[in-house]
Amino acid sequence: MEKYLITGFSGFVARHFLDFLGKVETEVSVLGLDIIPPNFALDSYTNIKCSFQKLDLLDVEKTEEVVAAYKPDYILHLASYSSVAFSWKNPLLSFQNNTAIFLNLIEAVHKNSLSPRIISVGSSEEYGNVEKSAIPLTEQSPLNPVSPYAVARVSQEMFSRVYAHGYGLDILMTRSFNHIGPFQKDIFVISSFAKKLISIKNNGGPFTLKTGDLTIVRDFVDVRDVVRAYYLLFKQGISGETYNICSGTGTTLSDILEKMEAKLNLSVKHEIDPGFIRPDDNRIIIGSNEKINQQIAWSPEYSLDQSIEDILKYWDENESPL
Amino acid sequence: MEKYLITGFSGFVARHFLDFLGKVETEVSVLGLDIIPPNFALDSYTNIKCSFQKLDLLDVEKTEEVVAAYKPDYILHLASYSSVAFSWKNPLLSFQNNTAIFLNLIEAVHKNSLSPRIISVGSSEEYGNVEKSAIPLTEQSPLNPVSPYAVARVSQEMFSRVYAHGYGLDILMTRSFNHIGPFQKDIFVISSFAKKLISIKNNGGPFTLKTGDLTIVRDFVDVRDVVRAYYLLFKQGISGETYNICSGTGTTLSDILEKMEAKLNLSVKHEIDPGFIRPDDNRIIIGSNEKINQQIAWSPEYSLDQSIEDILKYWDENESPL
Repeated sequence: MEKYLITGFSGFVARHFLDFLGKVETEVSVLGLDIIPPNFALDSYTNIKCSFQKLDLLDVEKTEEVVAAYKPDYILHLASYSSVAFSWKNPLLSFQNNTAIFLNLIEAVHKNSLSPRIISVGSSEEYGNVEKSAIPLTEQSPLNPVSPYAVARVSQEMFSRVYAHGYGLDILMTRSFNHIGPFQKDIFVISSFAKKLISIKNNGGPFTLKTGDLTIVRDFVDVRDVVRAYYLLFKQGISGETYNICSGTGTTLSDILEKMEAKLNLSVKHEIDPGFIRPDDNRIIIGSNEKINQQIAWSPEYSLDQSIEDILKYWDENESPL
Repeated sequence: MEKYLITGFSGFVARHFLDFLGKVETEVSVLGLDIIPPNFALDSYTNIKCSFQKLDLLDVEKTEEVVAAYKPDYILHLASYSSVAFSWKNPLLSFQNNTAIFLNLIEAVHKNSLSPRIISVGSSEEYGNVEKSAIPLTEQSPLNPVSPYAVARVSQEMFSRVYAHGYGLDILMTRSFNHIGPFQKDIFVISSFAKKLISIKNNGGPFTLKTGDLTIVRDFVDVRDVVRAYYLLFKQGISGETYNICSGTGTTLSDILEKMEAKLNLSVKHEIDPGFIRPDDNRIIIGSNEKINQQIAWSPEYSLDQSIEDILKYWDENESPL
């Protein structure tokens, strides 16, 4: 039985990855690690032998103990402090939780002479502020991180390469673009918009939404497409390679808001809150998914409209007071 | 009176920087920080009001306290675990001591709204393994770190840029190539060779020297030239820019050994010790100093022969049993 070790297990990406495994595998073992327990039932997947262990990957000894005991075939390293805004407020904490934890993980693998296939999840934020002429971003585009979070992500990717070349570890790196989908926490912009609009819809106002800069352009990709890409990379990806995981299409935040409001039949006033504006932000990020498409025949299956509909549905079913 | 804050104060670069300040300034204040006290007298410079404080820059609160109280005009950030070999053995420790300490330092500057000019010292190791055709390396050459140490150095440089652009900090970055000179510890290759050869010379054998790969090529630059570059960058460098500090000439380790043996009139057998071979090492590193030369008219003044002579003299005067 193949064994998957998943860090950042209690986040929404892991949950979707489990859903995907549940659909495509007949029998697998999964060990989830996180600093907080998952808020979903572990026994809901009949074909997954699923367990959870509370673990802070900053704890070197315990991390090594767990990895050495479980001997995973695959490691999906999702654990991260993935908020750019948080990284500006707590650069050191964000940085350590995005690099030291990865280093502890791969050191545990190396020290115990294990040979799992590892996916090191990176971010489109690594590209930083780019000229319009550099769009769409390919894996060859220069990296120019403009936030502490992005620096950590580039560092993690560099470490992946160092351990792949220096010690022969089987690591694949991704630059995953903005994930969206059900179960995503509302500290992320699209979930936050959806939750607030649902609340306005259901509670009847106030019809004002405080936002950051709505003109920035992002490449949104449904989390269910992202986890399918991770699975395919485990099975068919090329060791030591870096892959963009993106839709290839750019959308402004105001476009997303408009789509949501149209679906909810709402009209809401948008008000810029300077608290949401970051010291330095990327104006436009759109990726090319040509490489992953050519190498493992992946392309997104969820349309932006479908994603938005499912996100709104999720918040409608899970609305809690703001 | 202008105030210099120097981290990594007890290392050999700081000592040479003080020597240089002693020569060119009439009256300056220096506060040195390090985890170990310096092994030189603080009162030997009549024109420098010099003090030392024991401080681990990993201590966030104390670092902020010291920076806020001293309010430096210049910060020379020399503190680092600068051994590549050590970084392979202790990647996490090396990484944290090379990035978290810098982050703490610039956070202290930012939080207290100070505006010192900061030199973030980086390394030629950032360039990594390069093709011969990419030599000499310019500041535009791609960075491809191949050791944990080098990853940390690139991270520090990325953080410098993030804080320069995001918060307007006045930071200059260097990629300093292999420093050599008197007072350098013998964990570094050239000092190690010199110390061992002096011991062989003075004690009469054994006439065998254990070495790593002697065919690798490095760009050696005298530490006294390096500190002059730092001083000139403080005075005339351009904020936010990155500068190679190098000789522009490549030399193999075996060439250096040969020069040393010739000067000492010694013939020694070289024996490769696998313990000195690293998982992944840069074959050839030679930099271009065109940028710093054009912008602030710096070029090296010490010849390799002069450096080697002074290093041998230093170890002859300071020889201790191996």
